[in-house]
Amino acid sequence: MHVGGKVSVQSTVEVEDRAALAMAYTPGVARVCTAIADSPELAATYTWVANTVAVVSDGTAVLGLGDIGPAAAMPVMEGKALLFKKFGGIDAVPICLDTTDVDQIVATVTALAPSFGGINLEDISAPRCFEIEDRLRAALDVPVFHDDQHGTAIVTLAALRGAARLVGKSFGSLRVVVAGAGASGIAVSKILLAAGVGDIAVSDSKGLIYEGREGLNPVKVALAAVSNKARLAGSTESALRGADVFIGLSGGCIPEAALEAMAPGAIAFLLSNPDPEIHPDVARRHARVVATGRSDFPNQINNSLAFPGVFRAALDVRATTVTENMKLAAADAIAALVGDDLAADYVIPGQFDPRVAAAVAAAVAAQARADGVARR
Amino acid sequence: MHVGGKVSVQSTVEVEDRAALAMAYTPGVARVCTAIADSPELAATYTWVANTVAVVSDGTAVLGLGDIGPAAAMPVMEGKALLFKKFGGIDAVPICLDTTDVDQIVATVTALAPSFGGINLEDISAPRCFEIEDRLRAALDVPVFHDDQHGTAIVTLAALRGAARLVGKSFGSLRVVVAGAGASGIAVSKILLAAGVGDIAVSDSKGLIYEGREGLNPVKVALAAVSNKARLAGSTESALRGADVFIGLSGGCIPEAALEAMAPGAIAFLLSNPDPEIHPDVARRHARVVATGRSDFPNQINNSLAFPGVFRAALDVRATTVTENMKLAAADAIAALVGDDLAADYVIPGQFDPRVAAAVAAAVAAQARADGVARR
Repeated sequence: MHVGGKVSVQSTVEVEDRAALAMAYTPGVARVCTAIADSPELAATYTWVANTVAVVSDGTAVLGLGDIGPAAAMPVMEGKALLFKKFGGIDAVPICLDTTDVDQIVATVTALAPSFGGINLEDISAPRCFEIEDRLRAALDVPVFHDDQHGTAIVTLAALRGAARLVGKSFGSLRVVVAGAGASGIAVSKILLAAGVGDIAVSDSKGLIYEGREGLNPVKVALAAVSNKARLAGSTESALRGADVFIGLSGGCIPEAALEAMAPGAIAFLLSNPDPEIHPDVARRHARVVATGRSDFPNQINNSLAFPGVFRAALDVRATTVTENMKLAAADAIAALVGDDLAADYVIPGQFDPRVAAAVAAAVAAQARADGVARR
Repeated sequence: MHVGGKVSVQSTVEVEDRAALAMAYTPGVARVCTAIADSPELAATYTWVANTVAVVSDGTAVLGLGDIGPAAAMPVMEGKALLFKKFGGIDAVPICLDTTDVDQIVATVTALAPSFGGINLEDISAPRCFEIEDRLRAALDVPVFHDDQHGTAIVTLAALRGAARLVGKSFGSLRVVVAGAGASGIAVSKILLAAGVGDIAVSDSKGLIYEGREGLNPVKVALAAVSNKARLAGSTESALRGADVFIGLSGGCIPEAALEAMAPGAIAFLLSNPDPEIHPDVARRHARVVATGRSDFPNQINNSLAFPGVFRAALDVRATTVTENMKLAAADAIAALVGDDLAADYVIPGQFDPRVAAAVAAAVAAQARADGVARR
């Protein structure tokens, strides 16, 4: 399946004789170039740029494999490009960079910007990914979206909407514990706070993050200020006592006893991939709702429910950015599709549900217009 | 023809269910990534990189339109990508850069290198294009090829092989005048010297270039040292008196009288586009062989006879670079196809001659091996 790669570039016009070639290329193309030079907005009509996304990685945090470098990251970026096309109809170009320097990555992607309608950052290690995304968002007038953060955050929020509804708990009452403070852990925590969960405690490799803990990076300092109201210290497990929701994003393990100690109607999202924090069948003994990142268990929480529709909308309305509201709208659109079929093993639509991308795109496009970031 | 652009990205694998998705993307793709991380040469087998070329421009010298910027350059780069696919079966990605700074262009393309099997530079103004290409050739272990230089040079040499054979003159006896000392003028002059023409006089906007002329840039100084043996000064027209070959690459005009003053059996390549230096019908009154860059006259000298086969070969043998010998081999392969059909209006094969790309690729691959730059 992977021999020769998984994507190709194809012509969309037939050029079978001299006359057609003279139209498609020189001299005919000169008229198109001149028109764009005179009216830059015509680039959206007369080039492929308006339907393209660059899938950019530096290969430092590829799947659960870590820093395997740009060449070895390419199969993942090609897979992502494949999903962009399949679910979003988007022409995505996999770009793996031969640098891990933040300044160089920002400069490179900035230089590439006229070639793409959006930038999907992928598999870039934390905390560098936060700075890279922030700086690119400030520099560019096209959407910049670090999917490991926001794609995961959107889909996790969507699943939690369903799970909370199933167990009959309000979002404001939820006490959530997130294991992992990398790209996805931080982004999931932020979107859940924005969506109004009661409280979140987040742990990293040194334990729970609380305001005033020594040696926190700036992103964790900011998170500590708005999370863990009880200033819990210690282990993830200790925080799970009486908690409503566990979200595993650390690549680690969680003992069965910790889930057993959670509140009645517990929700466990075991999102480390390919190995969940605890076997889903074991988790189900203690949690009412169990979700994973895997396709071979129910309730798959997978970014491909989000990014194709988010970018489809962003490209369609020529959004200058992806706002927080657009991400919340995407999550709610996914969650709404579950409807009356809600069940413990169906809190989120399936990967191949044909309604998802269109529903996400419609909601995100409307929100982009409401937020004033749509250019058409 | 240009609405929506002229290229697209397509999947080459079917992903219609969860099982296929789990193979194409996570978790299945992890095995492929790990294999490449362990054995980097496997990237050539298990990604699309080995069949890709980046078509890179900064939009500073687009066709005859000049510095129209990266957004307006995109239709040309898409057209080029289309030709790469059609004639070479190569996946080419159009990349227009939002910088004209030489250092930034070199840094950007260097950072992109793991994503592409080769770099085709396009429509970058002289003399910046020379430094950019030189530095990228030194930095990268994949072929870097500025098509405005070398594509034009290869095809011009091929046509001159045919024209010289037709008029019965040996290459060593030819006195050539080249109007224009930009990217193509310099490259054409260099390849003709390498191919053994007797002498070349090259002119720029200030007249003929000779050793010691004031204010020459380094590229012209180097050219002056090996050309214009008679140290002719003055106008292009003055040098044409008694010359065997005129090659127009300046975008300017040439008076009929200047062609009339050339040697018997004169050869006129009127390559400025879309407007030749003089109307071909007028030129034919005085020149035995007339060629242009246009598809609506005989003897079209067009780069697309060269670059698809050159890159096809370079990718097939995983060449680390494109040597001077490989360019000469490409020209000779094109010229050889004319064979016994040689005539005043057929000194070079046509644009759609299906033999050309394969013949160029075979010759260039063999030469790459002979030059020790092939990796397989």
